[in-house]
Amino acid sequence: MKTKYLIPLAAVATAALLPSVGVAQEAGVEAAAHTSYILTTLLFLVGGFLVFWMAAGFAMLEAGLVRSKNVTMQLTKNISLFGIAAIMYWLVGFGIMYPADWLIEGWLGPFFAVTALEPVALDPAEASLDYASAGSDFFFQLMFCATTASIVSGTLAERIKLWPFLTFVVVLTGFIYPIEASWQWGGGWLSEAGFSDFAGSTLVHAAGGAAALAGAIVLGPRIGKYSKDGKVNPMPGSNLALATLGTFILWLGWFGFNGGSQLAMGTVSDVADVSRIFANTNMAAASGAIAALILTQLIYGKADLTMVLNGALAGLVSITAEPLAPSLFLSLIIGAIGGLIVVFTVPLLDRLKIDDVVGAIPVHFFAGIWGTLAVVLTGGYHGEATLGAQILGIVAVIAFVFVSSLIVFYVLKATIGLRASEEDEINGLDVSELGMEAYPEFAKG
Amino acid sequence: MKTKYLIPLAAVATAALLPSVGVAQEAGVEAAAHTSYILTTLLFLVGGFLVFWMAAGFAMLEAGLVRSKNVTMQLTKNISLFGIAAIMYWLVGFGIMYPADWLIEGWLGPFFAVTALEPVALDPAEASLDYASAGSDFFFQLMFCATTASIVSGTLAERIKLWPFLTFVVVLTGFIYPIEASWQWGGGWLSEAGFSDFAGSTLVHAAGGAAALAGAIVLGPRIGKYSKDGKVNPMPGSNLALATLGTFILWLGWFGFNGGSQLAMGTVSDVADVSRIFANTNMAAASGAIAALILTQLIYGKADLTMVLNGALAGLVSITAEPLAPSLFLSLIIGAIGGLIVVFTVPLLDRLKIDDVVGAIPVHFFAGIWGTLAVVLTGGYHGEATLGAQILGIVAVIAFVFVSSLIVFYVLKATIGLRASEEDEINGLDVSELGMEAYPEFAKG
Amino acid sequence: MKTKYLIPLAAVATAALLPSVGVAQEAGVEAAAHTSYILTTLLFLVGGFLVFWMAAGFAMLEAGLVRSKNVTMQLTKNISLFGIAAIMYWLVGFGIMYPADWLIEGWLGPFFAVTALEPVALDPAEASLDYASAGSDFFFQLMFCATTASIVSGTLAERIKLWPFLTFVVVLTGFIYPIEASWQWGGGWLSEAGFSDFAGSTLVHAAGGAAALAGAIVLGPRIGKYSKDGKVNPMPGSNLALATLGTFILWLGWFGFNGGSQLAMGTVSDVADVSRIFANTNMAAASGAIAALILTQLIYGKADLTMVLNGALAGLVSITAEPLAPSLFLSLIIGAIGGLIVVFTVPLLDRLKIDDVVGAIPVHFFAGIWGTLAVVLTGGYHGEATLGAQILGIVAVIAFVFVSSLIVFYVLKATIGLRASEEDEINGLDVSELGMEAYPEFAKG
Repeated sequence: MKTKYLIPLAAVATAALLPSVGVAQEAGVEAAAHTSYILTTLLFLVGGFLVFWMAAGFAMLEAGLVRSKNVTMQLTKNISLFGIAAIMYWLVGFGIMYPADWLIEGWLGPFFAVTALEPVALDPAEASLDYASAGSDFFFQLMFCATTASIVSGTLAERIKLWPFLTFVVVLTGFIYPIEASWQWGGGWLSEAGFSDFAGSTLVHAAGGAAALAGAIVLGPRIGKYSKDGKVNPMPGSNLALATLGTFILWLGWFGFNGGSQLAMGTVSDVADVSRIFANTNMAAASGAIAALILTQLIYGKADLTMVLNGALAGLVSITAEPLAPSLFLSLIIGAIGGLIVVFTVPLLDRLKIDDVVGAIPVHFFAGIWGTLAVVLTGGYHGEATLGAQILGIVAVIAFVFVSSLIVFYVLKATIGLRASEEDEINGLDVSELGMEAYPEFAKG
Repeated sequence: MKTKYLIPLAAVATAALLPSVGVAQEAGVEAAAHTSYILTTLLFLVGGFLVFWMAAGFAMLEAGLVRSKNVTMQLTKNISLFGIAAIMYWLVGFGIMYPADWLIEGWLGPFFAVTALEPVALDPAEASLDYASAGSDFFFQLMFCATTASIVSGTLAERIKLWPFLTFVVVLTGFIYPIEASWQWGGGWLSEAGFSDFAGSTLVHAAGGAAALAGAIVLGPRIGKYSKDGKVNPMPGSNLALATLGTFILWLGWFGFNGGSQLAMGTVSDVADVSRIFANTNMAAASGAIAALILTQLIYGKADLTMVLNGALAGLVSITAEPLAPSLFLSLIIGAIGGLIVVFTVPLLDRLKIDDVVGAIPVHFFAGIWGTLAVVLTGGYHGEATLGAQILGIVAVIAFVFVSSLIVFYVLKATIGLRASEEDEINGLDVSELGMEAYPEFAKG
Repeated sequence: MKTKYLIPLAAVATAALLPSVGVAQEAGVEAAAHTSYILTTLLFLVGGFLVFWMAAGFAMLEAGLVRSKNVTMQLTKNISLFGIAAIMYWLVGFGIMYPADWLIEGWLGPFFAVTALEPVALDPAEASLDYASAGSDFFFQLMFCATTASIVSGTLAERIKLWPFLTFVVVLTGFIYPIEASWQWGGGWLSEAGFSDFAGSTLVHAAGGAAALAGAIVLGPRIGKYSKDGKVNPMPGSNLALATLGTFILWLGWFGFNGGSQLAMGTVSDVADVSRIFANTNMAAASGAIAALILTQLIYGKADLTMVLNGALAGLVSITAEPLAPSLFLSLIIGAIGGLIVVFTVPLLDRLKIDDVVGAIPVHFFAGIWGTLAVVLTGGYHGEATLGAQILGIVAVIAFVFVSSLIVFYVLKATIGLRASEEDEINGLDVSELGMEAYPEFAKG
C-alpha cells in the first residue's frame, strides 16, 4: 500500500448514495464497498500482470542489445532475477516496505518479515474493504521490486559472472529496494517530507539506475570498448528485432505500472484518473521516441533505432513520477525531454568510460531524475510538490542505493569475484560459463 | 465515441431497479450509473492496451517478412509511426473525428482541434456518467488511428525512404483517417446513410489497404521482384518465427479491437455482447487460418505458413465489420472466405505487378471489403444493414483514402523524393540509410 | 462450466445486503446479480485472452527449441492446431464436455454437439444471472482444450509429418480431451468420486503429456539422437531467445489459466481468492525456475537455461491442480519440487530412448502428476481431497488419454503414415515438406 490514496471508501460510497435513508441506505453503502474492493483488486491483478510482462520486455531488450555470444547468459540472468525477486520480496521485502502488514501477518516473527495472504474464501464481514485484497497488493508491489533488478542486468551485461550478479539481486530485492521504497510508499520519512513520486521515477528507475551505475564502476568496461587513444568502439546488439519487441513489451507493461499506481478503481473519480494516466503515459512514450528520432537525424544525419527505443523508454520513465496531473501537452513535453536526455547522456557515459551495455543509466537514472523534478511543473496530483522536497528525495534515494550497491559489489569482488576472466569474456559468457549458445546454428560475424 | 451505442444509461439503470421507490431508488440509479461508467471505462482501457499491442504485432510481422537487410528500417518505421499517430491524433485527429468534443475541449480554437482530458479527480456530480471517461475514450480511439498507419508500412517496405514515409503517416493519422472515420463514427453522413461497420473492416482496414495500394502504385515494385519475362521472383521473409509471433500478437490484440468496439460494458446485455464478439472473432481467425492451410495444400501441394498467417489475419479483418450479430457458424464461414480471399488475391497483385511485401492489401483491403459486405448476411447488430449502404460506404471511404493518399504520395515523390536509390535498395536500407544492421553477426544468404 | 463453483449468487447478494427491506431490497439484489454476472464474465474474457496468449508461448518455446531446419514446420503446426482446436471444440468438444448445455443449445441434434451463443442484446430478465455469459464461458474453456494440443506438438517435433499430426489434433481436441475433462469439470464420475483438479494439472497437462508420450513411443526418436553405444547426442535448440520469450508468455498466460478457473469474480470472497491464485501461481513459477537453476549448477557445474525455463513451467504445472489453498510458502515448495522433477526426468526419458524434443513430458506429465498429488497437502480448496481420489483421477485420465492416443497414432501410422522419410528428416521438414525456410538468409551451423 503506497500511502497516496488512503481514501475513506465508505465515506465516498455514502456521498454517492446520499440522500437515502435507513437500512436500504446501509445495505447500499455496503454493496458499494464490495464493488469498490473488487474493482481495485482487479486493477492490481491486471496492473500486476502487465508489470510482470515487463520482465519479459527487459529480457528481450537486453538479449537483443548484447552480442550473440552473451545472449544465453543475459536470458538466464533475466529470468533468474525475476525468480529471486519473487522469493526475496515475499521473504523479507514486502514486510520491510510495509511494516504494519508483516507485524500482523508474518509468521516467523522478527527474523523474517514473511508475507502471508488473506484466508481462502475471505469473509467480507471480517475484512477491511476500503482497499483491495492483500494478495493482489502483494502481487502488484512485487513486480516493482523485480523491475528494479531488471534495470541493473542490462548495464552489467557481457562481463559480470552469473552467481555474483544473482547474489547482488538477492540483496537488492530483499533489502535495498524495500528499504528505500518504504521511505515513501511505506509511509516513511520521505513521504512525510513532502516528496512526490507517483509510480517510481526515483524509487524504482533512478534507484535501479544508481545500482547499475555502481556496478558499472566496480566492474569496469568491457574489453575493447574504449581504446587507449580515447576512441569508443561500438559493439552493436545482435538482434534489433528482439530489442524492439522488448521495448513494445515494456511500453505495454507501463500502462499497468503507472495506471495501477492509482491504487484505486472503485469510484468514477479514480477510474477517470487511471484513464488520464494511460493517456499521458502513452503520450510521453510517443514523444520520447519521436524526440530521439528527430534529434539523432539532426545530430548524426541518420535516425538511430536504438536511440528511438531508448527514447520511448526514457519518455516512460520521465512521466512515471507524475503521470496523473499533467495535461497531454505537458506529458508530451516531459516525455520529449526524456528522449533528448538519452541522446545526450549516452555519449556522456562513454566519455566517462562507464560502459552501460544497453543504455539503462541514461534511460532509468537520468530520465528518472528528470521525471522526478518535473513533478514540480504541476505540483503533483496533490498539488503540493516542491523542488526542495523532490531534490531531497532524489538525493536520499540515489545516495542510499548507490552507496549500498557499491559496498555489495566491492564485497562480492573481494570474495567470490565479480567479473569473468579475460578469456571467458572474449569467448563469450555463453560458451565459457554456461556451455550453451543461444543461436548455435548461425554463423558469427 | 462511435455513434453506435448512445444508450440512455440512466434509463437502463432505472429499468433494472424497478419497481423501487423514493430516495433509495434515486441513490440506486446513481450507484448503477457509477458502476456502469467504471466498467465501460475499464473496457476502453483493457481494449486500448490490447490494440496498442497490435502495433508490436505489425512490427514483428513486418520485420519477419522483409529481408534481413531491411529489418532495422522496418522496425524504425513501425515504432515511429506509432509515435506520430499518438501525437497527430491528439493534435488534430480526435477533434476532427468527433467535432462536438474538441469544440468544447480544444484550447487552440479553430487552428488545432487539440484534445483535452477530463480534470484530475473528476467530480461525478459534474460529469456525464452515461458513457466512459474522456481519457479512456481518447486512448482507445487513438489505437485505431495508429493501426491504420501500421497497415501501410508493410506494403511499402524495402524501398520507401524513412522520412517520406513518416511524412505520409503525419497526413494519414492527422487528417485522412480522422476525416473518413468521422463520416461514420463521428455521427457523419455515412452513419446517417445506414452504413454499418462495427469495428472498422472498411474504416480502418480497407482504408489502410487503400492507402497502401496508392503507395505501392506510386513507388513501384522492388528491384528484381518482377522479371521482364513476367516471372515473379519470390523474396522470402528473413524470420518466420517473428512473423508468426506478430500474427499471434495481432490475434490477441483483436479481442480488444472488436470487443472494445461494443463501447459499453456496464450492463448484462453489453457484457454478453462483448463475449459474443470475443468468441466470434476467435472463430473467424481460426477458420481463416485453416481455410488458407487447406487451400494452399490443395493448390500448391504444400501448406504455406505465410498464407496461414495472413489467412488468420484476413479472417480477423473479415469479422471486424460485424463481430456481434453472426452465429459462431456464420463467423466460421465469414472468416474462412477471408482466408480464401488472401490465397487468391496474393497472386492477383503479382500479376498486376503491384508489389505488396507482406500481403497487407489482400489481408486488409480485399478481406476488409468482404467483411463489410458480409454484414448484410445478418443485417448487422441493429438489423438494418443493406447492400446498397454497405457498397456506398466502401466506395466512399476507399475512393477518398485512395485518391488523397495518391496525391500525398505524388507530392512527396515530386518534392523530397519517395524511393531509395537503386544502390541503396540493393545494399539494403539498414546499411545505406540508417547505418545499422538488425542482425550484424549473422551471415547473409 | 467447471463444477466447482455453482454458488447460488442471489443468496450471496441477499446476504450482502441484509438487513434491508421491501422493493428497494429486491432492486438491490437484482443490481448485485447484474454486477456479479458482469464481473465473472469479465474474468472469463480477460482470463481467456491470457490463455489464448499461451498458444503463442508454446509456438515460440517450441520454435526456439527445435533446430532451424524445422522451425517453419513447428510454427505451422502450432498455429494450425489452435485453429483446429477452436473449430473442433465448437463443433463437438464443448457439447461433449458440458452435456446439459448442448442438449439445449445444439442445432444439429444428436449428430453434433454444436455450441451456440446467447442471443444478441441479451435480456437480463430472460437470462440466468448466477454465472456468466455463455460466450465468455465457451471462449475461456476453448483455450484449455487448445492448450492440451499445444503440449503434444513440442514432443513430436522434427519428425512427425504435418497432416498426420493435425489429424491427431482433430481427435484430441474434438473427443479425447472433452471426454476426460467432462468426467471432472462436466460434473461427471470423477468429480463425484472426490477428485480435485482446480485448473488442470491432470485434466490438461498430464493429459497432454500422456498424448505426447504415446506419440513419442509410436514415432520413435529422431535420427541420430541415440547412438548405438547408448550415447545421447544433444540437438540444441536454434534460438534460446525465442524459447525464453515463449516461457515468459506462458507464465503470463498462466495467471488467466489458474486465476480464471476460480470461475467467479462477483464477490469480495471470489476476487480475494483470485488474488491468492495469482500470487501462488507466480511463486510456484519462480521457485520452479530457481530450483532448476540451483540444481543444474550443483549437478552439472553449470546453470542450464533450458532447464530453468522448463523449471518455471513445471512450477506452474505443479501449482495448477490447487493454486488457491496453499500458502505462499507451500506454493514455493510445490513449485520447487516441480522444477526438481524436470531436472531429474529429462535424462530419465533419454535413458528410456523416448525422444521428447522440448521436454514437454517432464514439464506437463511428470510435474502434472506431482501437482495433482500435492493437492492432498492442503486438502484442496474444499478441504476434502484424498490421496485415493487423486490417484484414481490421475490413473483414469492418463490411462484413457494414453491408450486412446496410442490407438489413433497407430491407426495413422498404418494408414496415411506418421513419420517423415529419413531423407526428409535429415534435410529438415521445412525444406522437404513445406518448401519454406524460417531463416533463409542465415547460414546453418
